[in-house]
Amino acid sequence: MAEQEKLTFGVIGAGRIGRLHAQHLSQRIARADLLMVSDIDEEAAQQCAEACNGIRCSTDYHDILSDSDIDAVLICSSTDTHAQIIEEAAAAGKHIFCEKPIDHDLGKIDQALAAVEKAGVMLQVGFNRRFDANYRRVRQAVESGEIGEPHLMHIISRDPGPPPIEYIKVSGGIFLDMTIHDFDMARFLMGSEVEEVYAAGAVRVDPAIGDAGDLDTVMITLKFANGAIAVIDNSRKAVYGYDQRVEVFGSKGCISTANSYSNTATVQTQDEIRRDLPLNFFMDRYVDSYLDETEQFLQAVLTKSPVPVSGSDGRIPVVMARASRKSYEENRPVRMDEIE
Amino acid sequence: MAEQEKLTFGVIGAGRIGRLHAQHLSQRIARADLLMVSDIDEEAAQQCAEACNGIRCSTDYHDILSDSDIDAVLICSSTDTHAQIIEEAAAAGKHIFCEKPIDHDLGKIDQALAAVEKAGVMLQVGFNRRFDANYRRVRQAVESGEIGEPHLMHIISRDPGPPPIEYIKVSGGIFLDMTIHDFDMARFLMGSEVEEVYAAGAVRVDPAIGDAGDLDTVMITLKFANGAIAVIDNSRKAVYGYDQRVEVFGSKGCISTANSYSNTATVQTQDEIRRDLPLNFFMDRYVDSYLDETEQFLQAVLTKSPVPVSGSDGRIPVVMARASRKSYEENRPVRMDEIE
Amino acid sequence: MAEQEKLTFGVIGAGRIGRLHAQHLSQRIARADLLMVSDIDEEAAQQCAEACNGIRCSTDYHDILSDSDIDAVLICSSTDTHAQIIEEAAAAGKHIFCEKPIDHDLGKIDQALAAVEKAGVMLQVGFNRRFDANYRRVRQAVESGEIGEPHLMHIISRDPGPPPIEYIKVSGGIFLDMTIHDFDMARFLMGSEVEEVYAAGAVRVDPAIGDAGDLDTVMITLKFANGAIAVIDNSRKAVYGYDQRVEVFGSKGCISTANSYSNTATVQTQDEIRRDLPLNFFMDRYVDSYLDETEQFLQAVLTKSPVPVSGSDGRIPVVMARASRKSYEENRPVRMDEIE
Amino acid sequence: MAEQEKLTFGVIGAGRIGRLHAQHLSQRIARADLLMVSDIDEEAAQQCAEACNGIRCSTDYHDILSDSDIDAVLICSSTDTHAQIIEEAAAAGKHIFCEKPIDHDLGKIDQALAAVEKAGVMLQVGFNRRFDANYRRVRQAVESGEIGEPHLMHIISRDPGPPPIEYIKVSGGIFLDMTIHDFDMARFLMGSEVEEVYAAGAVRVDPAIGDAGDLDTVMITLKFANGAIAVIDNSRKAVYGYDQRVEVFGSKGCISTANSYSNTATVQTQDEIRRDLPLNFFMDRYVDSYLDETEQFLQAVLTKSPVPVSGSDGRIPVVMARASRKSYEENRPVRMDEIE
Repeated sequence: MAEQEKLTFGVIGAGRIGRLHAQHLSQRIARADLLMVSDIDEEAAQQCAEACNGIRCSTDYHDILSDSDIDAVLICSSTDTHAQIIEEAAAAGKHIFCEKPIDHDLGKIDQALAAVEKAGVMLQVGFNRRFDANYRRVRQAVESGEIGEPHLMHIISRDPGPPPIEYIKVSGGIFLDMTIHDFDMARFLMGSEVEEVYAAGAVRVDPAIGDAGDLDTVMITLKFANGAIAVIDNSRKAVYGYDQRVEVFGSKGCISTANSYSNTATVQTQDEIRRDLPLNFFMDRYVDSYLDETEQFLQAVLTKSPVPVSGSDGRIPVVMARASRKSYEENRPVRMDEIE
Repeated sequence: MAEQEKLTFGVIGAGRIGRLHAQHLSQRIARADLLMVSDIDEEAAQQCAEACNGIRCSTDYHDILSDSDIDAVLICSSTDTHAQIIEEAAAAGKHIFCEKPIDHDLGKIDQALAAVEKAGVMLQVGFNRRFDANYRRVRQAVESGEIGEPHLMHIISRDPGPPPIEYIKVSGGIFLDMTIHDFDMARFLMGSEVEEVYAAGAVRVDPAIGDAGDLDTVMITLKFANGAIAVIDNSRKAVYGYDQRVEVFGSKGCISTANSYSNTATVQTQDEIRRDLPLNFFMDRYVDSYLDETEQFLQAVLTKSPVPVSGSDGRIPVVMARASRKSYEENRPVRMDEIE
Repeated sequence: MAEQEKLTFGVIGAGRIGRLHAQHLSQRIARADLLMVSDIDEEAAQQCAEACNGIRCSTDYHDILSDSDIDAVLICSSTDTHAQIIEEAAAAGKHIFCEKPIDHDLGKIDQALAAVEKAGVMLQVGFNRRFDANYRRVRQAVESGEIGEPHLMHIISRDPGPPPIEYIKVSGGIFLDMTIHDFDMARFLMGSEVEEVYAAGAVRVDPAIGDAGDLDTVMITLKFANGAIAVIDNSRKAVYGYDQRVEVFGSKGCISTANSYSNTATVQTQDEIRRDLPLNFFMDRYVDSYLDETEQFLQAVLTKSPVPVSGSDGRIPVVMARASRKSYEENRPVRMDEIE
Repeated sequence: MAEQEKLTFGVIGAGRIGRLHAQHLSQRIARADLLMVSDIDEEAAQQCAEACNGIRCSTDYHDILSDSDIDAVLICSSTDTHAQIIEEAAAAGKHIFCEKPIDHDLGKIDQALAAVEKAGVMLQVGFNRRFDANYRRVRQAVESGEIGEPHLMHIISRDPGPPPIEYIKVSGGIFLDMTIHDFDMARFLMGSEVEEVYAAGAVRVDPAIGDAGDLDTVMITLKFANGAIAVIDNSRKAVYGYDQRVEVFGSKGCISTANSYSNTATVQTQDEIRRDLPLNFFMDRYVDSYLDETEQFLQAVLTKSPVPVSGSDGRIPVVMARASRKSYEENRPVRMDEIE
């Protein structure tokens, strides 16, 4: 592959994220060739394939895995299928980009990561927010020492509205489904590992979420190996839209991000000064980051460099989520090594 | 007076601004002793005197001028009386602080300034905005070279609502009544004299203002001796409140000010992101600057140093206002030396 | 006192805060008459008295308590003297305004509050931030339902730099000395009582603070009776200055405050866009709130209305501070009723 | 063409803007088929064609005009060739998208527009900023009455740096080369025609620009038929980057836009509060608007609807530029009908 200039792809799962990735691969990433898309829903697979210059499609992802022309797969199917497909794709010698989370079960994750290692293929996990310009700027400030040694951090991450209760029931819970992104962000921004978590939580948005055994409002304290302390603030429903901000405070200063907006206009009237609401959800807010993470995966594979988000980066947030759930249930701080 | 540590004052005119100055002199400026207040309205004089620890009051300002215990007068009476009182106060050997404008008539201004010079007393004109923290910061940026050589400037100055038509009729017109502050601000911020003006104007707020022969909406272009170009944007009615901002753009950067607010809170709802309106009018917005200008007048008199806003600083904006009116009427650029 | 229009005061303690209160009482609050000031340091007492129109002074606060012309006292002496002076002042029939905290010892607080109750005098505690325009606006948003039911809150409160180590050693620790203001703010903004706290803390600013047995960096989780969850973020050293912000997130929206600045100017250069640092410390940032709390105390006494910050409001934050320290030491959530 | 679902394109001119349009047509606009690209520079044409999936290329745009498979052309060649190519393309029955300005010579423009009308093809002019989200939001506020009747407007449009002097010499001057965009913006935002202009100008950035007979710093007053007054503020060099803002003030309020940035982060240090500079030039700042204008052209052609920016919209700003130059040279207001 030393001489190879393009990478060929198959996309497994043609849901919302799968279609986005397929479109990026077929139209916006010059060195990518998308050859096939699969989905268990035949119509979804066909529509996606058609939108991507009429490539091949299938209802069986094994058609992708067995196609020797395909170098790499993007796994965008439902979470419960990730670990199994990773194992099979690794065995088939495909490089793998897998949407988050790898799985809810640490045992399955470990088995999948072992298969990847054994096969010698590359695996990147889809923590796309790392590639967002705002968070990259914060990471840069921490890494470069622009704000000195980090002491305190706030991660605010609120969704515009909760998913359907049916989804909540199979989601693995707010920590595994929603906070998982923020657990990754916490590690990424801080450049240090979390040693202990304390999760306070409540059902404030919808009692049905509580009935389903889940929480919709959480505030999680994280203690890092480097001595810093952080909180993650999650709500399933911010009526004003998708609220995604961070602040890192350190010995030499503080860096804070604001939300992103469709326009910068401010209107002043006799009643108030106002602006329009922020970009409403992740497909708008983070669209550039999805493109960028895929380009960096492609670059890593073509140059045989380390991927920017490893299998281990995919595993640790699941440990953090499990520790947070345990902390909430037992109302006490829980150390990471109690889980692992 | 070399050994003098306090300055004694009389306030002439107990209207809104007169009362504010009287209160500052009696309560907030340690080295000032307010001894008397006068107003042609006896009740106004009495109320003001009472609010100031029960000092003396009079309906005749000559009682102040003839009181040998009084070092300095603050002239806060109606504009048409300023020039006459300045002359008399100068003849009585009082130092003078006079509210803006000195007069609408350049001949009267010149006569008053001559009287001041002959008497050897000090005269400061009440362009209080020069003492506002925002404008001082802009002036500092221009003066220190922080933004390099100034090239372009915007002065935005909009009132929350027009004064009564009766006032408009005797106001001397928008250029002498309202823009006069911005003419002073333009010279102050730029540190250079205006050579030519071009005034575009319209009646957009209230036809009655037009019937009274005045304008309510103007945009005035200023060309400065230093080569910079500025515009002043005035409206008699900004429904959202008092709008007072400037921007100076130069070879090394740009400095812009925002409005001032009673609080910094931002509210996000499902409809919009909003904040409360700015401080509503000059008594709220510029209150600190009124205190500061008086303290600096006192300091200048006690130390025999130049006042920060001279008689000439009071005269030039009147010339600019007259040139602007001429420019509007003849729809052409008018040079300052056409007026003087 | 029904006919009384003025209230007479004595100020006990002429340190930084005492001098500020004395100046407000003598110069800026029309219905207040400051008659005497005391301080164990004779020079401090004299200087303060002189600055306040030459009123009487003493090195013994009993001279104030025994003066029958004095209606009310402001206790601004060191914290360890508060409880004792409250008891004596109450016995002398004086109304009492006492700087925070009342004491570090709950027993002493209870004894002082009992004395106040027995004497039938009024007691207000100096949590001045409640009177700040920003926090009042947030409280209004919560109280009026503008943001719906509150779910989550962040209180950020960082000092520009730590006090001297000698002070730290007798301060009672960061929770009693610094967070005490934020504990009060949390109750005030939320309009609900805290039931449980979890305090994470570290020594990140100066090891000498740790050697003195104290922390300089803390993040405290609060669970409220109304179901909301909050965090308080404290640091002894924000290099960019005094950082005082809050955000309350609720079912119908979110309200956030920003810092306060000496000017609103923004400068753009070839390197960056910048503005000047925020108002640097509490004497600048909260000066209006000190004036306002005293005026409201005076108003409450003159009209025999409830004071805005009661003795109980002074006691509860001390309980919260003690619970936080216990939580930190035992690394577990601590319920308020474990302390009381 | 009623049944047609796709539109076929040729791009004439493979410079910076031509390459951007070609890339959008070939990769990001689903209903567009880019078939050929031409440039007098063979290498430029080849590189562009290759980047667009290896389509055909030519050094002679007549190859595009004579290709009966091509429905529409995008004219991105140098300005002096626009009018001629428009005429030929119209004669060849192609729909035309032409970059701004159509020409510097009103006679040539009229001839080209006549040819378009005669041929019955559609012509859209490339004023891309109309499609920017910020300006669309402002237009919406004016059109919907959100800010009432417009009274005053500021358009600020400053480039990060001047083009080479060689370019300046053939550019037609700042009014035709740079302000042309703002003239269009003024008409677009206001929804009213300009009746008179007054242009103040100076050479402040580089004396060589003056030696070339041009200006680099201008402030232009516009009077509109609807009674509103506006200023356009242009500088060839803003050291902090591309500065693109507008403010429209009306009877019911005011709308203002801010610049666009690559990230929203704010950094606070012991020296200042700062953020990174705005997006640096039009390819970054307006990239989405280029995509959007092309999509709307395609939509207009496919649905036989009016194009959003007509030939007349291309002509009027040239008249405004000529009037501004005349105004500057004669230092007097110039009416549009003096030019036409």
